[in-house]
Amino acid sequence: MVRPRNFSAGPAQMPEDVLLSAQAEFMDFAGTGMSVLETSHRSAAYRRVIDAAEASLREVMGIPDSYGVLFLQGGATLEFAGIPMNLMRRGRAGHIVSGHFAKVAAEEAARYGSAEILATSEPTGFDRIPDLPAPEAFAGMDYGYICQNNTIYGTMFHGLPDCGGTPLVADVSSCFLSFPLDVTDYGLLFAGAQKNAGPSGVCVLVVDRSLVEAGPALGVCPTYLDYSAQLAKGSMLNTPNTFGIYLCGKVFDWVRGTGGLEAMGERNAEKAALLYGAVDRSDLYRGCAVPSSRSVANVTFRLPTPELEREFVDRAAGQGLVGLAGHRLVGGIRASIYNAVGIDAVRDLVAFMESFELSVTGRSF
Amino acid sequence: MVRPRNFSAGPAQMPEDVLLSAQAEFMDFAGTGMSVLETSHRSAAYRRVIDAAEASLREVMGIPDSYGVLFLQGGATLEFAGIPMNLMRRGRAGHIVSGHFAKVAAEEAARYGSAEILATSEPTGFDRIPDLPAPEAFAGMDYGYICQNNTIYGTMFHGLPDCGGTPLVADVSSCFLSFPLDVTDYGLLFAGAQKNAGPSGVCVLVVDRSLVEAGPALGVCPTYLDYSAQLAKGSMLNTPNTFGIYLCGKVFDWVRGTGGLEAMGERNAEKAALLYGAVDRSDLYRGCAVPSSRSVANVTFRLPTPELEREFVDRAAGQGLVGLAGHRLVGGIRASIYNAVGIDAVRDLVAFMESFELSVTGRSF
Repeated sequence: MVRPRNFSAGPAQMPEDVLLSAQAEFMDFAGTGMSVLETSHRSAAYRRVIDAAEASLREVMGIPDSYGVLFLQGGATLEFAGIPMNLMRRGRAGHIVSGHFAKVAAEEAARYGSAEILATSEPTGFDRIPDLPAPEAFAGMDYGYICQNNTIYGTMFHGLPDCGGTPLVADVSSCFLSFPLDVTDYGLLFAGAQKNAGPSGVCVLVVDRSLVEAGPALGVCPTYLDYSAQLAKGSMLNTPNTFGIYLCGKVFDWVRGTGGLEAMGERNAEKAALLYGAVDRSDLYRGCAVPSSRSVANVTFRLPTPELEREFVDRAAGQGLVGLAGHRLVGGIRASIYNAVGIDAVRDLVAFMESFELSVTGRSF
Repeated sequence: MVRPRNFSAGPAQMPEDVLLSAQAEFMDFAGTGMSVLETSHRSAAYRRVIDAAEASLREVMGIPDSYGVLFLQGGATLEFAGIPMNLMRRGRAGHIVSGHFAKVAAEEAARYGSAEILATSEPTGFDRIPDLPAPEAFAGMDYGYICQNNTIYGTMFHGLPDCGGTPLVADVSSCFLSFPLDVTDYGLLFAGAQKNAGPSGVCVLVVDRSLVEAGPALGVCPTYLDYSAQLAKGSMLNTPNTFGIYLCGKVFDWVRGTGGLEAMGERNAEKAALLYGAVDRSDLYRGCAVPSSRSVANVTFRLPTPELEREFVDRAAGQGLVGLAGHRLVGGIRASIYNAVGIDAVRDLVAFMESFELSVTGRSF
């Protein structure tokens, strides 16, 4: 069977080689004769899996020893609480609200301290990254907070805010491993794995150890969410999502073997340029994000009517192009073109967009 | 390759049929041409998976509509915080401390209210279930709390405490689906899946809706842990562990197809009787749990010296009997004989125990 072109926003397409490798050893992992699913997290065989996954991620991202790496459960949503509970020592965070999940994160943080909205693009329907606050705006705060790529709206920060020395916390769920970045620009970054790093059920968190070594800022922090305790236990304070971490490790190895973040960044820029080029040349499709804020990971556009959008999604699915419906909060079309989505898939989508436009308007682009 | 006899305490052996089925459809799930790992949790195909998993569990356990079912992340450990945050409306819980995880749960609950220890077997090294408190001891409390099976020590409640109308909360991680039970005896029960229900990374929680419909007791409860919000969203407040739930559903179907909880209970009793019989007949092995508190899921025993115990574990592994080392807190030998461990595996273990005893003492039993 031909694999569909999967443009889902997450859980999303995974590298075929990773899946085939996991399938091949599904019943006999590391010569144990058992599935990795059946292997104790305390076994030597599994210890090698989680250690190798962390080492591979450290190499891919260039993570220095002064940063810890955690593989947690509960998704980004649980970290929306975990972050203020760990970091809000002075009780203040500065949030930039560039989309739904940025807003939800700020609302969650406000339950644990003062989450001050320093900038928002909500008035324009989150069609852009808002103008960044001046560094002084972060003075006296525990951290500044951004959602670096806004999956729903298809926008992305193309430069980080200057927080004037205050640590920057970033939800990078949908742009994790999408391009090179300097980990030391962040105090903490975290990502739900189900977009670019692996399956759902794992949240990868990279944190400057100095921010958390004193233990959680708030006494109400559940032990599970105590980053210092989790770091001390190597993400094994309790049984982790063993299979999820195993698959993430394979994805990290795949990224390394495919040229690393430099190559990912070039490929993703090329894929995004193809798609945005089609949108811009078209008379039918209208991009949702202002061009200077466009995401390289999620390309969002609209057709003139919801009926046409449904027809677009349905006819695309009939041609093996799946997962193109926009998020239920906004509708429209969204093509998520994460690392595992190849340029051929994007070319197929552009060809479909051309033929669809021709069929609807009698013109193509 | 012959599958080892896997006596791990969790992640533990899974039914071979479940694994083979998952492997067979690993690259083409429900005719989508994609892996279930790549399938959006919002897709119709995945909706059917999670709905069927819940329906299957409801049938297996006889869960009435007045109880909700959740598939959460973070393991039992995260629920040690989630439970008091949701239920401690009056700020008091009555804990029976029968082992390490019962103690940890009480310590975590004490961070959110008054977690009163009504009974403990710590003075005797958790070798038994302590004498149960009188029903009046639970008066005025939000809930009574037990860990129904103590994985580390190999003990199990053979009758539930009478809480005199106060809801009973039970961590059933290592005896989940092991025998028939009446869900309405509990206000809430929960289980890390990695023993009897599926892979690690899923925590199944069954709760009397009336206890949580008013929302969390404590304002500091993270939204992720808000049971009422999770119930309203069908465990999809955010992206769940999609692959883990998919596998749990297959395990629930396997339990149903293998005779349900009645059959599981009979098989488990037979397996446990075989093993305890061997321990009791032997001069070399000494059971850890007092007989009236013995677990049907985890059989713990000791040899005269740690050196002999290491030799036992190593020689057993050489014969394909793996995962027999006791928990690092207590040492000794532990054979976890969950549902997926067949009676043949237990017979092989007993035969090995006989031959090991013969080789050490010159006598067998």
